[in-house]
Amino acid sequence: MKLYEKLADEITEAVRRGVFAAGERIASVRQASQQHGVSIKTVLHAYALLESRGIVETRPQSGYFVRDAAAKALAPAAPQSAHKSARKSAPPPPVPATVDVSRLVLSTLRSIRAHDAVPFGSPYPDPSLFPWRRINQYANAIARRHASWNLIDDLPPGNPELIRQIARRYAENGLPVDPGEIVITLGATEAINLSLQAVAKPGDTVAVESPTYYAMLHAIERLGMRAIEVATHPVDGIDIDALAKVIERQKIAACMVMPNFQNPLGFQMSDERKRQLVELLAAHDIPAIENDVYQELYFGDTRPSTLKTFDTKGLVLHCASFSKSLTASYRIGWALPGRYRAQLEKLKFLNTLTTPSVPQVALADYLRQDGYDRHLRHVRKVYRQQARIMSALVLRFFPVGTRVSTPQGGYVLWVELPARIDSMRLYQAALARGITVGPGTMFSARDAFRHFIRLNYSYPWTAQAEAALKTLGELATEMA
Amino acid sequence: MKLYEKLADEITEAVRRGVFAAGERIASVRQASQQHGVSIKTVLHAYALLESRGIVETRPQSGYFVRDAAAKALAPAAPQSAHKSARKSAPPPPVPATVDVSRLVLSTLRSIRAHDAVPFGSPYPDPSLFPWRRINQYANAIARRHASWNLIDDLPPGNPELIRQIARRYAENGLPVDPGEIVITLGATEAINLSLQAVAKPGDTVAVESPTYYAMLHAIERLGMRAIEVATHPVDGIDIDALAKVIERQKIAACMVMPNFQNPLGFQMSDERKRQLVELLAAHDIPAIENDVYQELYFGDTRPSTLKTFDTKGLVLHCASFSKSLTASYRIGWALPGRYRAQLEKLKFLNTLTTPSVPQVALADYLRQDGYDRHLRHVRKVYRQQARIMSALVLRFFPVGTRVSTPQGGYVLWVELPARIDSMRLYQAALARGITVGPGTMFSARDAFRHFIRLNYSYPWTAQAEAALKTLGELATEMA
Repeated sequence: MKLYEKLADEITEAVRRGVFAAGERIASVRQASQQHGVSIKTVLHAYALLESRGIVETRPQSGYFVRDAAAKALAPAAPQSAHKSARKSAPPPPVPATVDVSRLVLSTLRSIRAHDAVPFGSPYPDPSLFPWRRINQYANAIARRHASWNLIDDLPPGNPELIRQIARRYAENGLPVDPGEIVITLGATEAINLSLQAVAKPGDTVAVESPTYYAMLHAIERLGMRAIEVATHPVDGIDIDALAKVIERQKIAACMVMPNFQNPLGFQMSDERKRQLVELLAAHDIPAIENDVYQELYFGDTRPSTLKTFDTKGLVLHCASFSKSLTASYRIGWALPGRYRAQLEKLKFLNTLTTPSVPQVALADYLRQDGYDRHLRHVRKVYRQQARIMSALVLRFFPVGTRVSTPQGGYVLWVELPARIDSMRLYQAALARGITVGPGTMFSARDAFRHFIRLNYSYPWTAQAEAALKTLGELATEMA
Repeated sequence: MKLYEKLADEITEAVRRGVFAAGERIASVRQASQQHGVSIKTVLHAYALLESRGIVETRPQSGYFVRDAAAKALAPAAPQSAHKSARKSAPPPPVPATVDVSRLVLSTLRSIRAHDAVPFGSPYPDPSLFPWRRINQYANAIARRHASWNLIDDLPPGNPELIRQIARRYAENGLPVDPGEIVITLGATEAINLSLQAVAKPGDTVAVESPTYYAMLHAIERLGMRAIEVATHPVDGIDIDALAKVIERQKIAACMVMPNFQNPLGFQMSDERKRQLVELLAAHDIPAIENDVYQELYFGDTRPSTLKTFDTKGLVLHCASFSKSLTASYRIGWALPGRYRAQLEKLKFLNTLTTPSVPQVALADYLRQDGYDRHLRHVRKVYRQQARIMSALVLRFFPVGTRVSTPQGGYVLWVELPARIDSMRLYQAALARGITVGPGTMFSARDAFRHFIRLNYSYPWTAQAEAALKTLGELATEMA
């Protein structure tokens, strides 16, 4: 056991025994270094490990504090559960699970930030690919043009010109939509949350893919609903027969899916399967919440269809954003909520009143006047290349038995490790070396996918990235 | 009956009879003008009335559509209930009410926008008073300085420098707070929503003031909770004895109040009463959600204390924003959630992921470097003067028996009309003349305050504003 692991275990034990109470500040890094006679670096590693375990949290300008839920939080990441493993081939049990994955996700994100780590674990695209200079120019021009903004002009559904531009892009890609259906939201996150709230209530059961993008699980968790996971094929997408069986067995309030470039599997459902899925759900009057945030990041020749394309009953609530393709920190997303439009617009008003104006108008101006398509062609080419490079190197560096997904778009790779490897242990060992990965358990409400990781390939492929991937492979080989 | 009222009634009747189904487009303004042989202006008036009644809604570039809930929506605003009236002196019944006031509020806001009306009905401050030029300069400088933003740097609790500036202002006003407690939100709206979600669950009962600011009712409605209204004195604030009786009688999950410059009453609770309220709630372990958005807009010499000042148990969740005092469309608010900090931060992450960065950094720069206090001194002086002018003119123009509040801060006046006047009728009659008011029923979940209106005095006092107030007074006199 490494020195920093020993220190982290000591502090964990102290919290468990109540020496440090919930909310209490633990020793500063300098104090701990003196008290334990170890280097600053060792303490930093130990505290990072404690943070990733959910035992402490940092507060700005204040230091490290014991998390309120620390005692409870110990369980999922602690060594005693390290060898519990889920088999990929085993179908998910037909039992709805209550959901609490957000702690692990937030802690992973914090680790990336706190450690300036190689961001294979990040869910976000490399921001240096965004056309910042152009977008900023539009934002600044708007600030000069408009002396002031009246909140009353910004009420939902959102800025009319931005709505028009979004509708125009759909139409140009052969997906005509009614601009009057669009509601602008704070990123796809809010669109998904409001969509789920519009169609289901606390205690309801919601069908999700398995593995599923954890933002879906967050939405379910936030509203006190239950998730039932449906087997999902890495190439074909959600198993429609399995879903039909679930629907026969119990009441499903909604089904949440990512038919295009699913996070983490990267598949693109065929038109035929999309149609079957829409028809199955429509036959039972079950709304579908479609997360289509990667719609512009396809590797094929044309933008794929959506569930919306096949929806004749207004049961598809289609959610998307500019956060993956244009800029994430503007936080502009939208929903096309079908027959639930009135409820969704009202929930938007209740949730955050309005979406800030300047970002909306700046993106509308950019979309109308600038080279969004040129930008997208470049980004797609970069991601397609980097997907190939990372897949090849994972297969070279990682232990025998490792398998990788074949993404059809987006910027994440799903890696299945030999079954003995616990991805939480790999996550922690990697973090201590300044590398992050996305542990597979984030993608399930039932602690499945323990020997899977998600890797982000949006960042430039540098010697440092290659060395980090090699290190990851060595760590995995040691654990196999 | 005016021509436009007749046309609106005809269409209302057609919707009631199902001639126009929910979601259907009604005739365009031009078509209706030809079909009915009336002027475009008459049709516009009729459609505005239908919109304010909640029967139709506009969609950008599409026209007017019958609202899904139109049949249900007819009831509250339709003539048959026009003479139902609530007496101010009657205490609220001790029965929790389910809440649905957001439709009326949204429709009022839309009317203001659609008709470019004299905005006495607006809940927002005059945006021309905000220091736009300076704030825009900071935002532009930031866009030049930062090539790009990484979403991962923006995770909750929010930008550390903005958090520090907010804490500094509290400290300078004698209200020391721990910066580590602050969580940045999308305006106070999100802070209030997340606070309520952190402490209560669907079906719970929440105590509110009576009248109460409707954003409180929205938060309760959004989460499927129930509101119980507690008698509230126009000068002293919530009746603490009445609240104690409510608490004895039933389980209260939270209490939502505005101790400073309550919207709509404008009172400032005394330190003694604030302390009593905190102690009563603490004795029963009931969290208090304190909406302090008007904290900087006091008419006295110093910034008033808050419930937080008297909180020793971490039971006060204090919510505030810059939307009333600095800029509304940046949508920057915050919460000081006491012992619920961990839950609140997590809920923020689940609800909207992050708050956009540029507005946060721009406000932090403005607060650090610029004349916020000078700006506030000016705004306070303007509001204090305009409160006096409007109060005097309401008493001059309105019918005998009209009474007005004496705001201690903020920018709204609460007007009690003679009991026979239905403020929804006044609202509609005023709207037809290009004037908006806030109908009193927005401030209650039980349809109370039917003969009250709220007036906004933040806008410059012009001849047009005075004429509009005179017209309002004449309409009220006709109805009395």
